[in-house]
Amino acid sequence: MTVSLNTRLCRRFGLTAPIVSAPMAMASGGRLAAAVSGAGGLGFIGGGYGADAEWVDAQFAAAGNVAVGCGFITWALAEREARAPGLYDSVLQRKPAAMFLSFGDLSGFAEAAKAADVPVFAQVQSVEGAREALAAGAEVIVAQGSEAGGHGAARGTMTLVPEVVDLVGERAIVLAAGGIADGRGLAAALMLGAEGVVMGTRFWASEEALVAEGFQAAALAADGDATLRSSLPDIARGLDWPRPYTIRTLGNEWTDHWRDVPGGPRDAEARAAYGKAVAAGDAQGAPAIAGEAVGLIRRVEPAADIVARVMREAQEALGR
Amino acid sequence: MTVSLNTRLCRRFGLTAPIVSAPMAMASGGRLAAAVSGAGGLGFIGGGYGADAEWVDAQFAAAGNVAVGCGFITWALAEREARAPGLYDSVLQRKPAAMFLSFGDLSGFAEAAKAADVPVFAQVQSVEGAREALAAGAEVIVAQGSEAGGHGAARGTMTLVPEVVDLVGERAIVLAAGGIADGRGLAAALMLGAEGVVMGTRFWASEEALVAEGFQAAALAADGDATLRSSLPDIARGLDWPRPYTIRTLGNEWTDHWRDVPGGPRDAEARAAYGKAVAAGDAQGAPAIAGEAVGLIRRVEPAADIVARVMREAQEALGR
Repeated sequence: MTVSLNTRLCRRFGLTAPIVSAPMAMASGGRLAAAVSGAGGLGFIGGGYGADAEWVDAQFAAAGNVAVGCGFITWALAEREARAPGLYDSVLQRKPAAMFLSFGDLSGFAEAAKAADVPVFAQVQSVEGAREALAAGAEVIVAQGSEAGGHGAARGTMTLVPEVVDLVGERAIVLAAGGIADGRGLAAALMLGAEGVVMGTRFWASEEALVAEGFQAAALAADGDATLRSSLPDIARGLDWPRPYTIRTLGNEWTDHWRDVPGGPRDAEARAAYGKAVAAGDAQGAPAIAGEAVGLIRRVEPAADIVARVMREAQEALGR
Repeated sequence: MTVSLNTRLCRRFGLTAPIVSAPMAMASGGRLAAAVSGAGGLGFIGGGYGADAEWVDAQFAAAGNVAVGCGFITWALAEREARAPGLYDSVLQRKPAAMFLSFGDLSGFAEAAKAADVPVFAQVQSVEGAREALAAGAEVIVAQGSEAGGHGAARGTMTLVPEVVDLVGERAIVLAAGGIADGRGLAAALMLGAEGVVMGTRFWASEEALVAEGFQAAALAADGDATLRSSLPDIARGLDWPRPYTIRTLGNEWTDHWRDVPGGPRDAEARAAYGKAVAAGDAQGAPAIAGEAVGLIRRVEPAADIVARVMREAQEALGR
């Protein structure tokens, strides 16, 4: 039996696979984004905090002529634009396939994207967030469950997705994110009413991702019980993340230690050690930023192979 | 297109629907269990902490001649049997359809059930828990995600289910629990590799459940953002739950208040007030014990109607 995976997302963006790679800050470069788009999905560059305009430029260059999108952490982008305006507009002028905004009030940025004719993906972690994204005019709403790696919040994918689907109806395209790393997850997301998936951790463990091998190796060796949500890496980086967002990482010696220290890794020494471990790919000195899906990932692979296999597995699951 | 939902669970237990009602402590009585079994699923009596043998007797009587199972909170049952042995064996002698054990070391109880030829369902919240359940000889392993109402732990349904499926293979039947309240959830669970679902909150909001109307009404009025995991109700009841388990409830005035009080509702006055609110069905004086799936539930309905509709919706979703 042939099962069609030609969803509204595919039709709107001309995709052959309803698979989006998450704009993971500084890990999703142009090569990864282009590989995902080239395989029939939609790839995003992870502009992150918007701190490094040159890096964003370099990643668009690396993507070449392939259509890719770009993502930012909304509250951090707002701070940057208030201080030094221009990055956001310069990215819009590149006519990316879409702009992907997560974590914060997107209304102003969504308006500017609309004016530039760039579609907006809004990632939300609650029904309330989905309401705000709709009001801001997002064309695609990504319902992100707590299973996700990196920043996120408390609600689980299994309930958040269908509840957002019920809220949104035909007014936007809903995608599922959080804990999806194989074709079973894609098939399940479609059953929940999503029109596709956003995968982070699975593409984080790809050959094209800008991730140190030491972190990838730690994630491949772990099962899904090994992750936790905390604010420790944000404290160590001096990032003032607003509530209710926390960051999911692998647990390691570093998280075990700092979890019990009041205030966390705030002092200069702790911060320097953290930065050094990140730069060295030392998976005990800093935790790998990955989601519960690590337990479903066996190998670092080319992104195109991941897209093809997830599609094949989803077809098999749906055809049974 | 007709889609078969005749899974290994159905074949093993002679069911026409791969739907199990959770043994919610003191809320899942014999009438609810019998209604679910009568509708083609498998219903469980919620023996809870094993504190009230007469209540368990009365619920088996209420179930009449319909085959139902019985569930207990494993660590509490162990304490009770150490103090006053007999309840567990007396339930085994009734030859329930299955014994459902959650939260704690089940090995001794699983052995006794095997000797009595009663199949064991083991509910787990981690891959590690699934390993222990396999070692103890559980025939059915329920992978319960954090979305679930009542007691549970941190991992999400979306990753825990496929990871447990990969671990278990053909050695046991895996069911999904946590955040499943409609046919989309059942269809998604099957895509993740589960052989069926355990639903708690959906049956908690049934006509047969032993739940005060005030609590049900509060849950129907809430969306899925409105729940939280805490230990507050356990503190108020003087129940010494082991780590890592917490209890998911609706947030209300009571949780808002006590969340900020060091130590929580420990004193005699707070405990008495909590008990009074529970008895009165006062959904502000005590929180409704329900999961994130409250956002997917619109009405209190007969359990048989719930089973029939979830099956119909799952068929529709899978047939698309």
